[in-house]
Amino acid sequence: MTAVSNIPTAYPVPLHWDGEALDIIDQRALPQAERRLRLNTCADVADAIRALAIRGAPLLGIAAAYGLVLAAREGKLAQGGALLRAARPTAVNLPRTIDRCVAVVAASTDSPEATLLAEAQRLVNVEVNASDGITRHGASLLACARTIMTVCNTGALGTGHRGTALGIIIRLAETGPVTAICCETRPLLQGARLSSWELSRHGVAATVIVDSAAAALMRTLPIDAVVVGCDRLAANGDLINKIGTYGIALAAAAHGIPFIAAVTRSSIDAATPSGDDVEIEQRDPGEVLDLVPGVAALPGVTALNPAFDVTPARLITAVVTEAGVVRHASDPRTARLSETTDRAGL
Amino acid sequence: MTAVSNIPTAYPVPLHWDGEALDIIDQRALPQAERRLRLNTCADVADAIRALAIRGAPLLGIAAAYGLVLAAREGKLAQGGALLRAARPTAVNLPRTIDRCVAVVAASTDSPEATLLAEAQRLVNVEVNASDGITRHGASLLACARTIMTVCNTGALGTGHRGTALGIIIRLAETGPVTAICCETRPLLQGARLSSWELSRHGVAATVIVDSAAAALMRTLPIDAVVVGCDRLAANGDLINKIGTYGIALAAAAHGIPFIAAVTRSSIDAATPSGDDVEIEQRDPGEVLDLVPGVAALPGVTALNPAFDVTPARLITAVVTEAGVVRHASDPRTARLSETTDRAGL
Repeated sequence: MTAVSNIPTAYPVPLHWDGEALDIIDQRALPQAERRLRLNTCADVADAIRALAIRGAPLLGIAAAYGLVLAAREGKLAQGGALLRAARPTAVNLPRTIDRCVAVVAASTDSPEATLLAEAQRLVNVEVNASDGITRHGASLLACARTIMTVCNTGALGTGHRGTALGIIIRLAETGPVTAICCETRPLLQGARLSSWELSRHGVAATVIVDSAAAALMRTLPIDAVVVGCDRLAANGDLINKIGTYGIALAAAAHGIPFIAAVTRSSIDAATPSGDDVEIEQRDPGEVLDLVPGVAALPGVTALNPAFDVTPARLITAVVTEAGVVRHASDPRTARLSETTDRAGL
Repeated sequence: MTAVSNIPTAYPVPLHWDGEALDIIDQRALPQAERRLRLNTCADVADAIRALAIRGAPLLGIAAAYGLVLAAREGKLAQGGALLRAARPTAVNLPRTIDRCVAVVAASTDSPEATLLAEAQRLVNVEVNASDGITRHGASLLACARTIMTVCNTGALGTGHRGTALGIIIRLAETGPVTAICCETRPLLQGARLSSWELSRHGVAATVIVDSAAAALMRTLPIDAVVVGCDRLAANGDLINKIGTYGIALAAAAHGIPFIAAVTRSSIDAATPSGDDVEIEQRDPGEVLDLVPGVAALPGVTALNPAFDVTPARLITAVVTEAGVVRHASDPRTARLSETTDRAGL
């Protein structure tokens, strides 16, 4: 591993409203091709969300807001809301944005389309500010961390701006060489495809590993911290994130490695008591089986494909939001984070 | 998941000596095609081992023995031994078989070729008996287990006969419906490709999962036990097995699920004090990166690809060998195994 520290600061723009329609990077084609899609209807937006052409909890909220603009233009606001709400169940940003947009329209005297467009643009600004705050607080907390493990993609492609977990890593790399250990994130490989692409764009060294190597490499590499994003944080602090996060958290606890959750406030769900109350999206078994020609046709062979898992709050050393950092006082790894902060002179 | 319990008992034959050459199933082509390869020289055998056309610790020992028969016929016994020894470093069966064969030749008055052929055939019988013993002891230990998680492939394809961990699951299925939860086992997918194929042949229900779903499914499925094979068991009881095993063991401990190692005595290495003394094979980063077109070409992006990991002895509830079962008395999960055994009236 050779760390690279030539940092251009241009974040990719995964989504923008071009005045008439929603223009997105088709994340399914990365890193092989930077293909853009133009989503002209609310149904297009729901399809893109369902197919994972666009993904990441904060970005899903923004996409839903623009999807409702298109639905309002079509005169189908209620149907559009239902379509978007059903597109992906686990990230709280989707239903929350839809509920808020409906309330804003009800309270406004402007046209629904104009009202929703203003609300969508406000939401973009909220997420830009959230990314800035999270990456600033996270980079302070981890000032001395040089080798950081992460899972899935939580950069600009998932949030619209700097990102959450990946944004922290990229921001840290502005102060010195950093190596990101990227779990490839089967079945859809967001870590291998998207995080490595974003890190490469920023000149940050990325080392891709199979997901199952995470625990072993905690024994053999000097990993300073694990930083992950979040699709939803329940009221009791349980974290719902990409499948694999829970196993990584168990391994980090066994190795005394700080496990940091980077969470925009838009993904905190005070209305859900615990992780066990969250519906975990079960995706098509084909996403697991189709990697091996012929296996899906074998008699008696099937697959389970939960897209997310629940990491209990007790395994989380600290939660970073745009408002600051909350540390788990009884986690012995909290002291290690404090030492890191002290060493950085903070 | 629907358990299937129509059990034919014909195990696949991954390797046989046809009188002149070694005939093997090319495991790289499964399950799509049942292609056979004829290995005519010792170098062919080493190539097949290196390329994983043939794999599995006990089967590697057998393949090495026949490889030496071919080397003796070529008059290149020493070179052949060195070639085979270097083909894969982690399984102890390879160097152990080579050392033993060299000693047997030195002590014999017959031709090296005839001596080695007799030794290879003896070794086949040893492994057949080991498979029978392990699967019998393991099926007794787990008599009441109905949902069992495993990783990699440890059936006939890895051992030459009934298998170790997978053999236990197939044997258990002879007494009632069983569901095997097969971790797909990135990067080379031995679980998704080979274990599902073997289970399907035997009419045992196989549920394939991405490796990173193992911990999450321990929260949500009624998993009775984890059973894994072994490439080497160190003198202190540390287990060296396919990458991912360690993370599964940590998760099993966190959930109170018995974690059983099925180990032929030929894979026990009393000469190696602990798992940390074993050389872990680092394979081509391409096995990780090549799943995503374009990612290997991104600047600053690389991969780490350790093929095995070390599971400390303290995480193992019981070790099953052909000689019997050794339980970890201080592991609280041992009691759960005893209850299982008691329920089965053993």
